[in-house]
Amino acid sequence: MNTDLRVVNLGLGDFLTSCREDGVPFADVEWRPPAQGDPDLIDILFDLTVGFRDAEGESRIDAANQTGLRRILAAQPVVKRILPARDLIPDFEENVILHAGPPIAWEDMCGPMQGAIVGAVLYEGLAGDSAEAERLLQRGSVVCQTNFSRGVVAPMAGAVSRSMPLFLVENETAGNIAFSPVNEGIGHALRFGVHNRPVLDRLKWIEAVLAPALDAALVDLGGVALKPIMSQALIMGDEMHQRNVAASLVFHRSVALALCDAARTIEDLKRIVSFMTRENEQFFLNLAMAGAKTAMDSARNIPYCTLITAMNRNGVDFGLHLSATGDRWFTAPSLLPKGLYFPGYGEADANPDMGDSAIVESYGIGGMALGAVPSVTNLIGAGNLIESLEYTYDMNHICIGRNPDLAIPNCDFAGTPAGIDVRRVVATGILPLIVSGVAHHLPDIGQVGAGIVTPPMEAMNKALRAFHHLVSQ
Amino acid sequence: MNTDLRVVNLGLGDFLTSCREDGVPFADVEWRPPAQGDPDLIDILFDLTVGFRDAEGESRIDAANQTGLRRILAAQPVVKRILPARDLIPDFEENVILHAGPPIAWEDMCGPMQGAIVGAVLYEGLAGDSAEAERLLQRGSVVCQTNFSRGVVAPMAGAVSRSMPLFLVENETAGNIAFSPVNEGIGHALRFGVHNRPVLDRLKWIEAVLAPALDAALVDLGGVALKPIMSQALIMGDEMHQRNVAASLVFHRSVALALCDAARTIEDLKRIVSFMTRENEQFFLNLAMAGAKTAMDSARNIPYCTLITAMNRNGVDFGLHLSATGDRWFTAPSLLPKGLYFPGYGEADANPDMGDSAIVESYGIGGMALGAVPSVTNLIGAGNLIESLEYTYDMNHICIGRNPDLAIPNCDFAGTPAGIDVRRVVATGILPLIVSGVAHHLPDIGQVGAGIVTPPMEAMNKALRAFHHLVSQ
Repeated sequence: MNTDLRVVNLGLGDFLTSCREDGVPFADVEWRPPAQGDPDLIDILFDLTVGFRDAEGESRIDAANQTGLRRILAAQPVVKRILPARDLIPDFEENVILHAGPPIAWEDMCGPMQGAIVGAVLYEGLAGDSAEAERLLQRGSVVCQTNFSRGVVAPMAGAVSRSMPLFLVENETAGNIAFSPVNEGIGHALRFGVHNRPVLDRLKWIEAVLAPALDAALVDLGGVALKPIMSQALIMGDEMHQRNVAASLVFHRSVALALCDAARTIEDLKRIVSFMTRENEQFFLNLAMAGAKTAMDSARNIPYCTLITAMNRNGVDFGLHLSATGDRWFTAPSLLPKGLYFPGYGEADANPDMGDSAIVESYGIGGMALGAVPSVTNLIGAGNLIESLEYTYDMNHICIGRNPDLAIPNCDFAGTPAGIDVRRVVATGILPLIVSGVAHHLPDIGQVGAGIVTPPMEAMNKALRAFHHLVSQ
Repeated sequence: MNTDLRVVNLGLGDFLTSCREDGVPFADVEWRPPAQGDPDLIDILFDLTVGFRDAEGESRIDAANQTGLRRILAAQPVVKRILPARDLIPDFEENVILHAGPPIAWEDMCGPMQGAIVGAVLYEGLAGDSAEAERLLQRGSVVCQTNFSRGVVAPMAGAVSRSMPLFLVENETAGNIAFSPVNEGIGHALRFGVHNRPVLDRLKWIEAVLAPALDAALVDLGGVALKPIMSQALIMGDEMHQRNVAASLVFHRSVALALCDAARTIEDLKRIVSFMTRENEQFFLNLAMAGAKTAMDSARNIPYCTLITAMNRNGVDFGLHLSATGDRWFTAPSLLPKGLYFPGYGEADANPDMGDSAIVESYGIGGMALGAVPSVTNLIGAGNLIESLEYTYDMNHICIGRNPDLAIPNCDFAGTPAGIDVRRVVATGILPLIVSGVAHHLPDIGQVGAGIVTPPMEAMNKALRAFHHLVSQ
């Protein structure tokens, strides 16, 4: 070229390397082609935007999405009981163990999920040791099913068996219910694939002592509404996935007096209070998950609705539900979280993203609400205010509304992003942010860190294509 | 004038009225003359800046202030006991009632302070009714003294008598101690001047039930460190003057298990838990105050130190202490808070600012830390993020350091402003921000609102002049 180069770069970061090396002046414009530059997806998005109109010319999709959004915002999840899974879930067979995420066969599961399933088999007394448990699983004498198929959400590996107590959360607006187990707390835990004696003992204590007392307290109170607690917690520095410190304390406050009456002894009471307020700052996570699930379930199966109603991961695959496509899973390989690792561990130890917990992001809290919680963004960055606000502003691009009941003080009390529209995700290339714990990829080691992750874009593309195919029929 | 006017205005807002009316274009520059434009104060500030050097040419004032700051930052307040005032304060005579703020005679007190003092006389059984109590006070049979003279801080009217239980807080770094009563909670309360039967009954319950149990718990625990709770609470949306929701829950968590053992009955335990976690979201305020006082007291009486070590108000006058001038009060009439009023009340009902609680602002929390708490700024504005950050950035102009133990997430984890230098206050005209409850100006009505207020500038000017006079001798 005969004249001096002056480069304007649109979205191609690598292109600038030679400019930098050669001292060529450049302006770098952050830009991504719509729909990943895929002509087929662009056609679909165009069709979904201009087509599918009713007699008045209104978009059936936009109308359906507004219906979905209204139901999500109207949900009033209330935790009513905590009872053994066998008493809540119809026909929960003795030889069934539930797991997180979309369906997966025993032999395809990742290490920590296998570890957790083995632990659940031992917990139920179906096997005398882990070798026997593995044999039962291999030959199909013990069967694995998804939590979602039974109305349950559970974090990480999510192993749930019929003796485990589950919270019963009811969306009092729509009347639908969902379940979640009790969060086990930090350190070695079944959900990270560890099934040693202390882990199983703690689970048995939850079953024998905590759950009956907490159930009596909940019955005494007629239930505890979860959305007011979520609302308060957002003002108190929780996004309710990585951080549940405030929510756990406020939930405990709600049941504290009833627990004084419900606990059999002062020693039981002290252990319960200690567990709920000191040993387990994530106690509220599982309640947030079940609450979020009741909200999202109320927006399921709406014809023409492109809102995401569930996101979860089994440690191998990520899966999502769209409202209009009901129970059909759209899956793609689960990604590795970026984040902070415990001393001695690193990305090479990490299992890909796992758990039903992304139901909270589906609802608009957790990673979607990082704008409320600068402290949590230090998992992947400097942990500063602007960064945290940018995350939530990004999420607003892919959501069709905000949840006024869940106000974020730092966003001038605008609500959390609500109603993730898969069309917007595919069009913008902006993926929902999910905050997550990180398990070691081997069984029986446990948590090695925490971080932030997104769904794989391919799952979004699949869902969009399937939706388009469905409505075009 | 023959040419078109184009106006640049420096700090004179009124000047622009005619420009606006006449459509004259203008630029408005926010500007205040240094030291309120007072030549005498400017001379003093110049002298204090360039003079008072040691043999090496270093400013003795700057060095003294750094010493003061180090002591403030090093303070480790720990609440050790809660005992009747008579057991903590030497020679606390039966006919003495303590009050908030700088010294003031009974007949000069405002309505709510008189109401509170009368309540304390009734509480002690020194009079059979309020008329008799007033006679005892008028003729000097009952004597009023400041809380500060006895090492106490108490919010609003701050009436303290010898039977009332006081927290004993020790600064474990320097070994100094301070006291504060138990916060009574919302609704009718002695601190707002109300002394009806429910108010006195609640105080008696605090004396008979809460205090003994909490003292046993504190002894059992060996005390509870307050700064870690303050640090956690700043991440959880409290500035610890207007808002103590998180701090109160975290403090309760610290003593919860010990309280289970210490309470005499389950019914006592339930009432205590209810009071500490549900009925009284300001429970921690009085602990923050006593903790702040131990920190600030450790920086008292440092020669050449221009740091403010205490600010308080008796409902008529505001008063402050400088480190170098020890126990001498610099006073000026207390201002009216700007804020939000309860339905049916307004500024005409408000008593001027009152209470020892501004000790928390002296320490750097409360109004100084509004940057942590966008929600609290709705007391005087839109309650938005930028406004709350601007308040704390303003406060950094008048402080010589930051408290790294009290990080504000929204300020990218910079610490709260620490060490208010009266030179900077007078030079910049920026006054410390104080968050405050508002009492009705009549006795026995109670709280009518909450707001934000500053000290009167005249008290700052007086302090600066006195300091200059002292060091110039």
